[in-house]
Amino acid sequence: MRKVYDMVIIGSGPAGLAAAIYAQRAKMNTLVIEKEMVSGGQVLTTYEVDNYPGLPGINGYELGMKFRQHADGLEAEVCEDTVEAIELTEEQEAGETLEAAELRLRRTGPSAPLKRIIGQKGTYLTRTVVIASGAMHSKLNVPGEEELAGMGVSYCATCDGAFFRKKVTAVVGGGDVAIEDAVFLARMCEHVYLIHRRDELRGAKSLQEKLFSLENVTVIWDTVVEEIRGQEKVTGLAVKNVKTGETGELAVDGVFIAVGVTPSSKPFENLVKMDHGYIVADETCASSVPGIFAAGDVRRKQLRQIVTAVADGANAVTSAERYLTES
Amino acid sequence: MRKVYDMVIIGSGPAGLAAAIYAQRAKMNTLVIEKEMVSGGQVLTTYEVDNYPGLPGINGYELGMKFRQHADGLEAEVCEDTVEAIELTEEQEAGETLEAAELRLRRTGPSAPLKRIIGQKGTYLTRTVVIASGAMHSKLNVPGEEELAGMGVSYCATCDGAFFRKKVTAVVGGGDVAIEDAVFLARMCEHVYLIHRRDELRGAKSLQEKLFSLENVTVIWDTVVEEIRGQEKVTGLAVKNVKTGETGELAVDGVFIAVGVTPSSKPFENLVKMDHGYIVADETCASSVPGIFAAGDVRRKQLRQIVTAVADGANAVTSAERYLTES
Repeated sequence: MRKVYDMVIIGSGPAGLAAAIYAQRAKMNTLVIEKEMVSGGQVLTTYEVDNYPGLPGINGYELGMKFRQHADGLEAEVCEDTVEAIELTEEQEAGETLEAAELRLRRTGPSAPLKRIIGQKGTYLTRTVVIASGAMHSKLNVPGEEELAGMGVSYCATCDGAFFRKKVTAVVGGGDVAIEDAVFLARMCEHVYLIHRRDELRGAKSLQEKLFSLENVTVIWDTVVEEIRGQEKVTGLAVKNVKTGETGELAVDGVFIAVGVTPSSKPFENLVKMDHGYIVADETCASSVPGIFAAGDVRRKQLRQIVTAVADGANAVTSAERYLTES
Repeated sequence: MRKVYDMVIIGSGPAGLAAAIYAQRAKMNTLVIEKEMVSGGQVLTTYEVDNYPGLPGINGYELGMKFRQHADGLEAEVCEDTVEAIELTEEQEAGETLEAAELRLRRTGPSAPLKRIIGQKGTYLTRTVVIASGAMHSKLNVPGEEELAGMGVSYCATCDGAFFRKKVTAVVGGGDVAIEDAVFLARMCEHVYLIHRRDELRGAKSLQEKLFSLENVTVIWDTVVEEIRGQEKVTGLAVKNVKTGETGELAVDGVFIAVGVTPSSKPFENLVKMDHGYIVADETCASSVPGIFAAGDVRRKQLRQIVTAVADGANAVTSAERYLTES
């Protein structure tokens, strides 16, 4: 007998684990597939999280563990595998028992295809899928970046800006997010440098005007960061002007890297509608394929935060329940 | 000199307090107005919350306090008042200092009107407003309902259903939510009664078909609940058939009241676009009036839960920051 899940959740960051919590509480037969050995996603590598209401100033790793323990406490099934594709199958699954087939047809109707998840270690059959595979902030790939992550190197001004009150910080990048980060940080930091490799910004004009009006922001043009320096915390940046070749050091207490985000959505790109790699879905999390939902940072949305990820997890399960009941 | 806030948040349930946390971290000059003496909103009267990731099985009152303490730790300003209206004012505010006016114009542009919040105790001037005034579940108003709230009387199957595994429960109501609740509870409960005062249901046809296909659900037509009985926990319901006048008792371990929800939006009904009393706004929380945002249960959305409320709080602040920067 081949097991057919009500829901397979891909990823066990905040969105995936919130989905697991809601699905278990709804008594859905659920499997969480995580490619890493530990759950938590990007939260794991966050030094301190101070914006998840109710748990102020918690260490990221600890918060990830709390989410996982919550799901474990509800007996969520989690396995370690890397998903390579999702296929839809109209047919009754070979090896599926009559009882399972009947249950499936009763619950989803004959027109609702099963989904077959292809992992590196095995395949999994399910009625619904929640893609909660997250995203990765693009890195500068310079010395010091990895070593000082969470010790002055950040990829999220909204998350970490408040830790740099009255300090000097730099933002690296030239798009909307970089400019927004610089404007945001200027409200709390002594001084903010915006370091951009070109001689003009890509961000929206109104944002640029706002940026240039701020007295405590300096834009450093045509410049790249070659190294992030410091022992246990960031103290400065080695920078180089790409036009003149001139090098120098900039003393800063923190650096915010805003050079782009890459959603982890490659295995699903021929399956669901995407926009710049993000899965297109509104807050109900329903993707372009019925029965497949996108939750967390992999979804196209305004704000990628832990709070919005857990909300997505809950919304995806609610939408999946409606799909199973009504289809 | 008259103080002009960057943001006034109306309500201090999960949505309002999450907004306060995000706004304080963004160094916005923020005021939270709460009509009750304690913060927390509907969470306060929830016996146990088991679906807020990271804090399994927490008492509702305790969770409300944790949210408030988090906001207090970030020095959010909270005052007790009841908001009666919001007015827009194009004019420079009488009593506003030159410095404050200049700051306002620099930040929001001359075309962005200030908002004047009219409370019972005072008025408050602000550039942006987050309406997080919540909603109230409609009550049956029968003996035992208030006394046994959280002890078997619930207004949310998604929240509390898991506590009634293998138990007998009743749902009161006849709309979509009541039917969904009954279908949901049937997955975990021994038996579910759906008690409806009329002889047909109002909910969607597909939902009704689903409901009628379930062997462990009994619909009790033309019947009202006259009393909820029990000592310290629900043990039964006194019911009456409205057509025959016949009365009886139904033994149940829990009763889910699904007779409607009333959003607390009356003071804003001539200001922002609404749908059945809910403020119309997508997940960015932007209402029909620029600079006014709706977060939490008062917003029109699919799922009203603590996780979606805190997400709204964060989204509303992010949208407000964009509004202040770009307008």
